[in-house]
Amino acid sequence: MGRVTERRRVVRIRGGAVNERPDTLVAEEPLEIRLNGRPIAITMRTPGDDFALAAGFLVSEGVLAAASDVRNIVYCAGAKEDGSNTYNVVDVQLAPGVAVPDITLERNVYTTSSCGLCGKASLDAVRTTARFPIADAPPLRLTPALLSALPDRLRAAQRVFDRTGGLHAAALFSEDGELLDVREDVGRHNAVDKLVGRALREGLLPLERAVLLVSGRASFELAQKAVMAGLPVLAAVSAPSSLAVDLAAETGLTLVGFLRGQDMNVYAGEHRIALGVPAAEA
Amino acid sequence: MGRVTERRRVVRIRGGAVNERPDTLVAEEPLEIRLNGRPIAITMRTPGDDFALAAGFLVSEGVLAAASDVRNIVYCAGAKEDGSNTYNVVDVQLAPGVAVPDITLERNVYTTSSCGLCGKASLDAVRTTARFPIADAPPLRLTPALLSALPDRLRAAQRVFDRTGGLHAAALFSEDGELLDVREDVGRHNAVDKLVGRALREGLLPLERAVLLVSGRASFELAQKAVMAGLPVLAAVSAPSSLAVDLAAETGLTLVGFLRGQDMNVYAGEHRIALGVPAAEA
Repeated sequence: MGRVTERRRVVRIRGGAVNERPDTLVAEEPLEIRLNGRPIAITMRTPGDDFALAAGFLVSEGVLAAASDVRNIVYCAGAKEDGSNTYNVVDVQLAPGVAVPDITLERNVYTTSSCGLCGKASLDAVRTTARFPIADAPPLRLTPALLSALPDRLRAAQRVFDRTGGLHAAALFSEDGELLDVREDVGRHNAVDKLVGRALREGLLPLERAVLLVSGRASFELAQKAVMAGLPVLAAVSAPSSLAVDLAAETGLTLVGFLRGQDMNVYAGEHRIALGVPAAEA
Repeated sequence: MGRVTERRRVVRIRGGAVNERPDTLVAEEPLEIRLNGRPIAITMRTPGDDFALAAGFLVSEGVLAAASDVRNIVYCAGAKEDGSNTYNVVDVQLAPGVAVPDITLERNVYTTSSCGLCGKASLDAVRTTARFPIADAPPLRLTPALLSALPDRLRAAQRVFDRTGGLHAAALFSEDGELLDVREDVGRHNAVDKLVGRALREGLLPLERAVLLVSGRASFELAQKAVMAGLPVLAAVSAPSSLAVDLAAETGLTLVGFLRGQDMNVYAGEHRIALGVPAAEA
């Protein structure tokens, strides 16, 4: 509850110098929203203000319009097997007389795939569902210089971004840094789905020698999509979330964040990065 | 199908000069994904590569792992009342012998709320569901200078962003530019839900004299949340999508994008912006 940030170990590469230190990441965990006891949505969120989040979601859905529409909002106890509270399941109980909407899949669910009741459940779900173990025979060995070159190649290949500023991009690269495919979408998860779907239809799964680069942040959902496609490396121009790092560490995915110029952070799977001699402690 | 961008009229404000011109926006429309005829997810996406998007989504969900798992992927005809094809509903038909997963709300649905089978249906859904007409008695009149000051106030109020780089922020401001509340989350829709939910619980809905500012882009979903909370103005630091602009125009919401320094674009509802004398045509 209220864990807005979490600490994880990171390998920092700055102009060729390498050192290891703790880093602060934004916390990400699933929240299940129930309405009068019935699950209606799951969203990946940063813990904190969960009652407000649930109430605001129900305003957007047209269920709530005034404080008096709510009888109570509670965390559901006993969400875990041992009966303890994960603080990741919230039940909104409507006041008498407030209409319970006919919530159907077509209209009301939002949120991301593969959620559980706690971060651990989310990780377990991916681990048990994954069809392709991440291949390491032999392991990819990517130099920082090769990774540094990828964002410019992505930007050069983007057809729409410069005109609208509204698209996320995702690209697949070979282990030699060659651009294999690039997709753009208003939703970053869609851009990755489009890449993976094209690879599936061309018989290219698992993508065991490829690198996935995304133009924005690396959420749990994107890390999950990389793992499910058998990708060994996910690189992002911006920050990863705590749960993305945890999933990468558990599954063996190499996760690179803040890939900008010669600099980058390696959050997991650094055995696939050809690191030079570590710099003296800063 | 394949409409990656769309054109909309925009009022551009550049260093105090005002002119009107067409602008290119990223297209956003809902896509319903069906599996053997059964709806399993709706996502707001940029049209194009829809079969790949559906296939890639099902790889992420653990349903597909090889091209041979798919018998066929088709657009569903007759999605509209007149029997015509919206190209926004895709059915993935599995090959014989491929297990149809037990898809439940808890595990599989992702995507955003309030989707329809076409952009028009999405707009209609919000219009008929909205509880608060946007109030204009008297209309807000915001100067460009006031709007220009808001992003810095948002950044100053953000507690976590500078440390993690992974959070989206959303803030409510009074019509005088005073910061009323700010929330952060790994998901931008969650940050807005948290703001609206807090306002609901404090008896402040509809937020008819407030301005909502978001740190990133303005998607349909964020515009929808603004409308449902009765907000008259949504301002974004980055680009809006086509469907966000359409919703704003239909409902009377003022939508400001690319709010950076003294510059901004007004996509709808410019009667709430105190514009100076238009500059000569550029």
